[in-house]
Amino acid sequence: MKYSKLFTKTLKDAPADEQARSAQLLIQAGFIHKEMAGVYTILPLGLNVLNNISNIIREEMDEIGGQELQSTALQRKELWEKTGRWDDEVVDNWFKTELKNGSELSLAFTHEEPMTDMMRSFIHSYKDLPAYPYDIRTVFRNEARAKSGVMRGREFFWKALYSFSKDEKQHEEFYTKATQAYRNIFRRVGLGDSTYLTFASGGTFAKYSHEFQTLCEAGEDVIYLDKSKEIAVNKEVYTDEVLKDLGLSRGDLVEAKAVEVGNIFSLGDKFSKPIGLAFSDENGDEKNVLMGCYGIGISRLVGVISELCADESGIVWPESVAPYKYHIVTIARYEDDESFQKSEELYNRLVQRGDEVLWDERIETRPGEKFADADLIGCPIRIVVSPKTLEQGNVEVKLRKEKESKLVEFDKV
Amino acid sequence: MKYSKLFTKTLKDAPADEQARSAQLLIQAGFIHKEMAGVYTILPLGLNVLNNISNIIREEMDEIGGQELQSTALQRKELWEKTGRWDDEVVDNWFKTELKNGSELSLAFTHEEPMTDMMRSFIHSYKDLPAYPYDIRTVFRNEARAKSGVMRGREFFWKALYSFSKDEKQHEEFYTKATQAYRNIFRRVGLGDSTYLTFASGGTFAKYSHEFQTLCEAGEDVIYLDKSKEIAVNKEVYTDEVLKDLGLSRGDLVEAKAVEVGNIFSLGDKFSKPIGLAFSDENGDEKNVLMGCYGIGISRLVGVISELCADESGIVWPESVAPYKYHIVTIARYEDDESFQKSEELYNRLVQRGDEVLWDERIETRPGEKFADADLIGCPIRIVVSPKTLEQGNVEVKLRKEKESKLVEFDKV
Repeated sequence: MKYSKLFTKTLKDAPADEQARSAQLLIQAGFIHKEMAGVYTILPLGLNVLNNISNIIREEMDEIGGQELQSTALQRKELWEKTGRWDDEVVDNWFKTELKNGSELSLAFTHEEPMTDMMRSFIHSYKDLPAYPYDIRTVFRNEARAKSGVMRGREFFWKALYSFSKDEKQHEEFYTKATQAYRNIFRRVGLGDSTYLTFASGGTFAKYSHEFQTLCEAGEDVIYLDKSKEIAVNKEVYTDEVLKDLGLSRGDLVEAKAVEVGNIFSLGDKFSKPIGLAFSDENGDEKNVLMGCYGIGISRLVGVISELCADESGIVWPESVAPYKYHIVTIARYEDDESFQKSEELYNRLVQRGDEVLWDERIETRPGEKFADADLIGCPIRIVVSPKTLEQGNVEVKLRKEKESKLVEFDKV
Repeated sequence: MKYSKLFTKTLKDAPADEQARSAQLLIQAGFIHKEMAGVYTILPLGLNVLNNISNIIREEMDEIGGQELQSTALQRKELWEKTGRWDDEVVDNWFKTELKNGSELSLAFTHEEPMTDMMRSFIHSYKDLPAYPYDIRTVFRNEARAKSGVMRGREFFWKALYSFSKDEKQHEEFYTKATQAYRNIFRRVGLGDSTYLTFASGGTFAKYSHEFQTLCEAGEDVIYLDKSKEIAVNKEVYTDEVLKDLGLSRGDLVEAKAVEVGNIFSLGDKFSKPIGLAFSDENGDEKNVLMGCYGIGISRLVGVISELCADESGIVWPESVAPYKYHIVTIARYEDDESFQKSEELYNRLVQRGDEVLWDERIETRPGEKFADADLIGCPIRIVVSPKTLEQGNVEVKLRKEKESKLVEFDKV
């Protein structure tokens, strides 16, 4: 992508109406645009990051047997009444709407009910199990206050997988696989070192649920972390009984603020029973399907990564999710300058070999402004092509995460 | 994909509650699941088709300078009040919702208003023009009746591009390019021969808008087609004055039912003026940005293709959008039969070279049922591997669109 063709612009100053550092940076650098509090358009640079994260998640979900589908935003009231979750007293962040005939509908904040109902068409026998449909889409939560940018949106992008199993053994096998897949995902997006499996309340059907919490000062959760064992406990279940159960002791635990980037739940027959999702087992007996759900906040991850991977000059994207791998900065006064021509040659060479490249080929912009934009946008590798570097046939290569640059022969980039 | 792993199932009978042939087929074959009238979950097979179409559209939009973003479903009332489109009397198919504080919001049925408002952040000078943001997403239309399956959804998937230009010349140049890109798209998805550029009413800012209408008995539009000139006129502007203007005569026109699969509009300053999207031109004068919009119904295309490309046995997908290119049917009694082993070898070989393959490796299912499923699902190339074909070292290859099969040497597939 040529920089001058990108319709977004970096802003001189961080927006005054955002409190979260990540939202300030993402808006200033042109990754997102605020429609209203908690609702953001994902701009082209941001969409690259969102897609990179989504594709990593896709690969890991497909690897453990997940099958992607596209569910709906509009949902039928009747299904949510069956599980007792329709009422605004029970779910406090519903968005509702209605059809022309006055029928009430809900806007998806999750999909257990419709997914369970849909699977009634496909699950009849133990032979139809297990099944792992998943979904990457926007969902809606009517947050009373939304002040954390894309870290807590009213409309946000997530992945949700639902597991359908015939018995506890089949369920547990997948739950363990999913836990490992989640570890892979957080490692691959660059948050492996700061993300911990965290025990949280399990609800009716399991002793615990499992959250993946990323250490972050801007986080809204508090966890107690045992660094040597690499597990944590959410404040909501931080009791002597739980610590004993998990073999943890208060002395080894450190209190920390964190953001929940993923969670996995064992649901038992909480949904299959009221909605009527049953199957015939090997003996011909009818049993309820056992379920699990597995969520990851994708737009939230964009926020968390930009919150944690940043310095005073801007974002420092991990290579796996960066909007572009290379950011070429050309210092030239005319398009027929050698430095411009060489830049174009380099740009074409990198693009042809399949690399993602942003080329700042602006002529009228001062070098200092271009460097500031490159730092703000935060691509991993900056390459400066200028008359000075070319004197010895070199270009200047600088990793965004390092202070020092080095000269590299033009032909060897 | 191994057939037995696919969580969806084909149904013995077409659903009784669908009138459109496409909806019946898509549900029976496991491409979509009905949540309510006009609202469908896109199942894994259907998502492959949807993604194939989306990727063709993406390539064509990127080719003419489009930049993809992800807009929002939730929209602010204030922007739609500025253009006079908030009122339910003006837009008769709004879905509305509200925030906890009682503020009304709309669910996107289109994005002219928010897109125009957003571009105020990025367009200041003629140097910032042109710009072509586009969006592939679900939008919402509160249809009083929804009985055409995915051909007219209450929640549906579309592509919308918005053009922002400094003058008529810049606008017209892009409009012409977009027209050609649309022709490419409909040709590439297999509807080239049955889709016609159709003149329709232009609204306030242009004499005509341009629709792309696909001939289809199940269509809700009526057009008058000049086959030799390859253009048509929508019934809504079928007047002597328009025919004269376009150089058409009634005698050359054939009345036909059709589905609108795409449309392009010149919008002038209809949105930029009330919302205040202006720029400084070369002389420093402030002018309103000129806009155009360019839509394609992607889930509608899934419906239209399955409506038109079908026979009595099922769907006949064009290769460019098919859920899988190959459908291998294995006739075997045990997994250690030669035909099973050979099938697996073939499956792995095709997958490794990058082909999309559905392998029906079910042991307990009768051959006739497997052939019926293959016809219903409609992948372009069926390969049967059976003890009989293997006797001479062959497999049976049949194109879905042809009646006859032929034997091909196993190693040459």
